Amino acid sequence: MNFRPLHDRICVEPIEQEEKSTGGIIIPDTAKEKPMQGKVLAVGQGSKNEEGKVVPVDIKEGEKVLYGRWAGTEVKIDGQRVLIMRESDVMGVIE
Amino acid sequence: MNFRPLHDRICVEPIEQEEKSTGGIIIPDTAKEKPMQGKVLAVGQGSKNEEGKVVPVDIKEGEKVLYGRWAGTEVKIDGQRVLIMRESDVMGVIE
Amino acid sequence: MNFRPLHDRICVEPIEQEEKSTGGIIIPDTAKEKPMQGKVLAVGQGSKNEEGKVVPVDIKEGEKVLYGRWAGTEVKIDGQRVLIMRESDVMGVIE
Amino acid sequence: MNFRPLHDRICVEPIEQEEKSTGGIIIPDTAKEKPMQGKVLAVGQGSKNEEGKVVPVDIKEGEKVLYGRWAGTEVKIDGQRVLIMRESDVMGVIE
Amino acid sequence: MNFRPLHDRICVEPIEQEEKSTGGIIIPDTAKEKPMQGKVLAVGQGSKNEEGKVVPVDIKEGEKVLYGRWAGTEVKIDGQRVLIMRESDVMGVIE
Amino acid sequence: MNFRPLHDRICVEPIEQEEKSTGGIIIPDTAKEKPMQGKVLAVGQGSKNEEGKVVPVDIKEGEKVLYGRWAGTEVKIDGQRVLIMRESDVMGVIE
Amino acid sequence: MNFRPLHDRICVEPIEQEEKSTGGIIIPDTAKEKPMQGKVLAVGQGSKNEEGKVVPVDIKEGEKVLYGRWAGTEVKIDGQRVLIMRESDVMGVIE
Repeated sequence: MNFRPLHDRICVEPIEQEEKSTGGIIIPDTAKEKPMQGKVLAVGQGSKNEEGKVVPVDIKEGEKVLYGRWAGTEVKIDGQRVLIMRESDVMGVIE
Repeated sequence: MNFRPLHDRICVEPIEQEEKSTGGIIIPDTAKEKPMQGKVLAVGQGSKNEEGKVVPVDIKEGEKVLYGRWAGTEVKIDGQRVLIMRESDVMGVIE
Repeated sequence: MNFRPLHDRICVEPIEQEEKSTGGIIIPDTAKEKPMQGKVLAVGQGSKNEEGKVVPVDIKEGEKVLYGRWAGTEVKIDGQRVLIMRESDVMGVIE
Repeated sequence: MNFRPLHDRICVEPIEQEEKSTGGIIIPDTAKEKPMQGKVLAVGQGSKNEEGKVVPVDIKEGEKVLYGRWAGTEVKIDGQRVLIMRESDVMGVIE
Repeated sequence: MNFRPLHDRICVEPIEQEEKSTGGIIIPDTAKEKPMQGKVLAVGQGSKNEEGKVVPVDIKEGEKVLYGRWAGTEVKIDGQRVLIMRESDVMGVIE
Repeated sequence: MNFRPLHDRICVEPIEQEEKSTGGIIIPDTAKEKPMQGKVLAVGQGSKNEEGKVVPVDIKEGEKVLYGRWAGTEVKIDGQRVLIMRESDVMGVIE
Repeated sequence: MNFRPLHDRICVEPIEQEEKSTGGIIIPDTAKEKPMQGKVLAVGQGSKNEEGKVVPVDIKEGEKVLYGRWAGTEVKIDGQRVLIMRESDVMGVIE
């Protein structure tokens, strides 16, 4: 991917909900906030603290993550619809 | 469970209120906020401070916890309705 | 009590106001916020700072405390109506 | 006084405004916020920082202090009307 | 003055605007916020950081200061109308 | 460029969206916030922490960046329309 | 100038926009916020951190700066209309 997220941001390709029958995560309509799921395409080098020390992101390229419905900003890179969000938007990794 | 919560988040299976007759916690309707109770299915590795040091979560898998009514986000993992919340949403552990 | 408050939270049994004639604290109706009084049933191990160091709570089990009217969340544990609140909700200890 | 304020709180007995003719402080009605004056009955041991270190309060029992009109919470202890407030509510000491 | 401001507060005697013809500061009516000017009567010992270390105030008794129109709280001490404000309310010193 | 951004600010020349057919980023109208893209003309020396230590910006002159639709302030320097924004407004670098 | 800004404040003489034809900065009416430009007349000694350490301002007397439209407070010193603002209100230096 020719896009390098800055600091603690990550780039995610959303997975459409129907594909999540076996071992996947189904988001109930009733839930106050419908979390979403996607594949990580790129991660930033990590956040920088006040001393300039880099604290790496705990998510790796290729992992499947669960994030909040309103997380991130939607863009198209090379025709591909992706979301750019912060590490803190991610609830966890689907193993 | 094939879900790894990130940082200081935990995954909880809510316990329906009727089951809480003996030694359980009954939530009065009058209470301004009705706390809920559930079993911990998975915990994150802990929060990371500005230096990148991990501070583990003080709740263990299998414990019964009490949390605020509006705590967390509801999802279904492998058909099971669970809540993903932060450690700070938990009021305490029912022993 | 079979409930362990988490971190800097405490569990308090409210004392109904009529019982506070001698040496007690009477809360005037006029007060903008009517503080309440109760007995401490359990205290958490203390708050954790960014390094993971535990700073103990300065209130002990059995002490009588004064707290703000809207402090804490009301629950019933083993049929007993209690309040779960943070140490910072407590104004002081009645000796 | 049988009340021990917690951390950086203090307990103050308000002085009714008429008594402040000589060397006292008269609060003009026009002032956007009418500060009040009172005698300090008890002080907490001080605030605790992230390391658990206690930083004592800079006000002593018996001193006369000036504080904001809306400062603190009003309670009656042993029939005596007092205010419980934070050290930071106090503007200064009247010597 | 028989008033000791607490921490980083200062006590200022406002200078009525007409007196500021030569070398003084005239506040234009058009300005979105009309700053005011006054003489410093007393300063606190300074703010205290988390370790309890005192950081002195950078303004001295007797200096003429410029401050925001809505800065501070107005009181009368020994019949004299004064303002009690924080060091951070002061924009600068008129030399 | 005869403009030196202060601290962690950068100066960006926006790239009009039509030019982004090959390898570029197309911003969908549907996106809640339409991110924008531009070329970096100048970067500040970096943010200063509480000790005065400078933490350099992680973006270089000449790089192409993606930023939020409402990021920065628009000015004209030598007739050229540019945006002045903070490093934290940038989502990532287009390589 | 007989005015000493406090801490990280600076005193700026605004430059009327018409004068900015060659090499200057023209502020477009369309811009959501019309930044302004001015000459620095005086700078404070710098901000003080929690330890009392002074961190100098990165702007010098005589420099031309670009700042936000609503930055600072307007006063007249010796008949001269000036703005008093914080260093953080300044976007950059026009060289």
